[in-house]
Amino acid sequence: MKHIEGYLRVSLFLSEMGKLSGVFSLRHFLVLSLALNVALISRVVYEGENWREEQIRALMADASEKSAHVSMSSSPPPPSPSTPSSMAVTSTEIKDDGERVINLDHGDPTMYERFWQQMGDITTIVISGWQSMSYFSDVKNLCWFLEPEFAKQIIRLHKIVGNAVTDNYYIVVGTGSTQLFQAALYALSPPNASEPMSVVSAAPFYSSYPSVTDFLKSGLYKWAGDANNFNKDGPYIELVTSPNNPDGSIRQPVVNRSGENLVHDFAYYWPQYTPISSPADHDLMLFTVSKATGHAGMRLGWALVKDKEVAKKMTSFIELNTIGVSKDSQQRAAKILQVISDSYEPVGNPKESGPFFHFSHSMMEERWKALRSAVKQSGLFSLPEFPSSFCNFLGQAFGSQPAFAWLKCEGGIEDCGNFLKKHKILTRNGKHFGASPKYVRVSMLDRDESFNLFTKRLSSLHLSQSKDHEEESP
Amino acid sequence: MKHIEGYLRVSLFLSEMGKLSGVFSLRHFLVLSLALNVALISRVVYEGENWREEQIRALMADASEKSAHVSMSSSPPPPSPSTPSSMAVTSTEIKDDGERVINLDHGDPTMYERFWQQMGDITTIVISGWQSMSYFSDVKNLCWFLEPEFAKQIIRLHKIVGNAVTDNYYIVVGTGSTQLFQAALYALSPPNASEPMSVVSAAPFYSSYPSVTDFLKSGLYKWAGDANNFNKDGPYIELVTSPNNPDGSIRQPVVNRSGENLVHDFAYYWPQYTPISSPADHDLMLFTVSKATGHAGMRLGWALVKDKEVAKKMTSFIELNTIGVSKDSQQRAAKILQVISDSYEPVGNPKESGPFFHFSHSMMEERWKALRSAVKQSGLFSLPEFPSSFCNFLGQAFGSQPAFAWLKCEGGIEDCGNFLKKHKILTRNGKHFGASPKYVRVSMLDRDESFNLFTKRLSSLHLSQSKDHEEESP
Repeated sequence: MKHIEGYLRVSLFLSEMGKLSGVFSLRHFLVLSLALNVALISRVVYEGENWREEQIRALMADASEKSAHVSMSSSPPPPSPSTPSSMAVTSTEIKDDGERVINLDHGDPTMYERFWQQMGDITTIVISGWQSMSYFSDVKNLCWFLEPEFAKQIIRLHKIVGNAVTDNYYIVVGTGSTQLFQAALYALSPPNASEPMSVVSAAPFYSSYPSVTDFLKSGLYKWAGDANNFNKDGPYIELVTSPNNPDGSIRQPVVNRSGENLVHDFAYYWPQYTPISSPADHDLMLFTVSKATGHAGMRLGWALVKDKEVAKKMTSFIELNTIGVSKDSQQRAAKILQVISDSYEPVGNPKESGPFFHFSHSMMEERWKALRSAVKQSGLFSLPEFPSSFCNFLGQAFGSQPAFAWLKCEGGIEDCGNFLKKHKILTRNGKHFGASPKYVRVSMLDRDESFNLFTKRLSSLHLSQSKDHEEESP
Repeated sequence: MKHIEGYLRVSLFLSEMGKLSGVFSLRHFLVLSLALNVALISRVVYEGENWREEQIRALMADASEKSAHVSMSSSPPPPSPSTPSSMAVTSTEIKDDGERVINLDHGDPTMYERFWQQMGDITTIVISGWQSMSYFSDVKNLCWFLEPEFAKQIIRLHKIVGNAVTDNYYIVVGTGSTQLFQAALYALSPPNASEPMSVVSAAPFYSSYPSVTDFLKSGLYKWAGDANNFNKDGPYIELVTSPNNPDGSIRQPVVNRSGENLVHDFAYYWPQYTPISSPADHDLMLFTVSKATGHAGMRLGWALVKDKEVAKKMTSFIELNTIGVSKDSQQRAAKILQVISDSYEPVGNPKESGPFFHFSHSMMEERWKALRSAVKQSGLFSLPEFPSSFCNFLGQAFGSQPAFAWLKCEGGIEDCGNFLKKHKILTRNGKHFGASPKYVRVSMLDRDESFNLFTKRLSSLHLSQSKDHEEESP
């Protein structure tokens, strides 16, 4: 978690303005919009702790020079609903001196900022000081800290998108799907077993699964590695991430033995990433706001749980771990989901910027096209291919366009992450996913500027550079 | 956590209004204020899961009948700053038929709602759909998910109140202080020890400490009970809660041996509860928004940590557990703390409802007076006494007036919780705190209506009822 990327805080403006005026008006949002531009411009990228200070200073100066250009591209005029892809920026105009660090290690979904910015006030929420003070949201609900409006909008969105069955499911809200993942492990592991329950997932698996499972050395559950190699008797938990992080593949359980407990991680089962073939109806399904709408800062996820006792135990986990989940974020997420659903229903708000999933689907399509073109131009890399299939929601066939690219270095490069790092492209090494270091995971969800710089630089890497690299580090 | 209390959600109004109008204005807040009244009126109290449905229906009907009366008491006119206690409702007017369940098991700080309601728009925040989307808050900070404005307001408030030193401390933000407590255990336990680190606290200790320490059967740390009886060699963690939950006592470590690791829980070290004698400057100190300002629904706390490596490990825990903390709640909390600090500084916002700590101090003073009077009138109970000492912040001497009353049943009643439950007063039994069942913990932070009903009913309990009780359950 040390390679991180950030931008200047817009909230400072908000707070300062609140101090001056007490209440906000529409006019203030115009000022806030300008503030966003400053935030986008002043974005700083850096590699690690050791050279933080000097790099940040240098990059800030660099960013200031680019102000005029970037400011324009971050505030384009609202596109019409029929041409959402008009918001995409082509990469051909970008100049790259090769010195700027491009950090695509994390899946920080800042790509979506521009969409929500263009939606304007329709998704704005106002919370008074006296609201949401109690621990409790709905005492009649098994998950008593789940805000009823958020629950309502979760169900509504699943019904509209058709990606999950919600009837006869319990909803458990969590501080991101990471907390819900731990809640699931807790709920599915018997409290008094003689040894910890094995937790497995087929490689390449999400790099956080092993550490999140094992960091507290729990006596209830224990990471047991690649599901393909798992042959222990007795009950186990298999994590099925589909589409998969990191490689975007559509997955089924691989162990298929008695004592099976499945957790389906559906963070990426949304129409911008993959065709929605049918509503998922597994026993325990995890979703997250971060990857669905781009609001990672809310730290909000939800689980759809078939079994009442499992839902109860998951709720207990969250009670013990954090005594519930931020009400403020739940209220805000309810509003975001509501606006998305409204845009897809006959009656609703005006579709100012085009429906969300159409916009984001087009954006991912453009990005994958640009990435494949860069890979082809370079000749040093390869990418997975995804078969086309029909999406019931979008009413068209397409191949998956995942939130991460699972990039493989060809041409004899053994450590792809290290090779790219020398060219100031930060990615996550394949070995963290239980796979070969010939692979890296690259976020496809960063802001336009980063993504375009990435494809530009990638396309310029050729075999000669690969050979230099191999000679440098034998 | 099964005895819970709730009220109808005001947020539904907010959301629905947002749908209709897109943006809020001052006029909307008037409507919202009316909505709050409905929420306060429609408050439902119930005992447990088994009789949830029928009780809720009955209580809702009951609440509707009381609408006119309660509506008036929940919206008093704004008091002048010099008479904050004018907001307190005297209990003498209340009629109690003995049938209404009074749930004071939790420390839900809904008492504070009225103060914030009267502060009006000054604490209102507005968050646009495109704000706070990234995982990251401040990449230059060790705790990269800590919102800079929240950090700034934490330091400012501590300096104004004088309850903690902040210079040369790291701030780690958590999803409530419960998460930070676990982060502290993780940070203070060596990763490769041969056995789990012992975790102790002097009885009576906070009832959640044992379960939160042990629920994942961690190999890193393990609950080892009452610190007064701890005599194991080697390193250990002692939890020092001061003022203490449940009994309000001012505490020091009791083990005092080599290998000591202290966690100071200062959730209640604020001037409404206890005199602020000096700024605390211990190695690891926990604070929570819930008990400081009453905003439990935000799920937000902070740790002040002296040692960089400990702060880093606590940050790692929160990364692994929830990948950060809700930005929305941090922004909202920053605003709340800012308004409190402004009211105590020469230049600032108008003191519409009187400074927060003066208001809440007076309210707690009134409540403790009312409780002691009820206890005296009944003759069945006793309460701890607190010596008066000087508060540097308020500039006056007073005895502690804790957030919980540690009530003891006299007159031969062996199970105080059970006795009160028969009179439909729900409290937390002393045995959950490592103490005798002759004690119960009672929340002093509920809304006026509940608290006043409680003191009314308590004062009416006499020795004859105690004897009936003993005969019923020998």
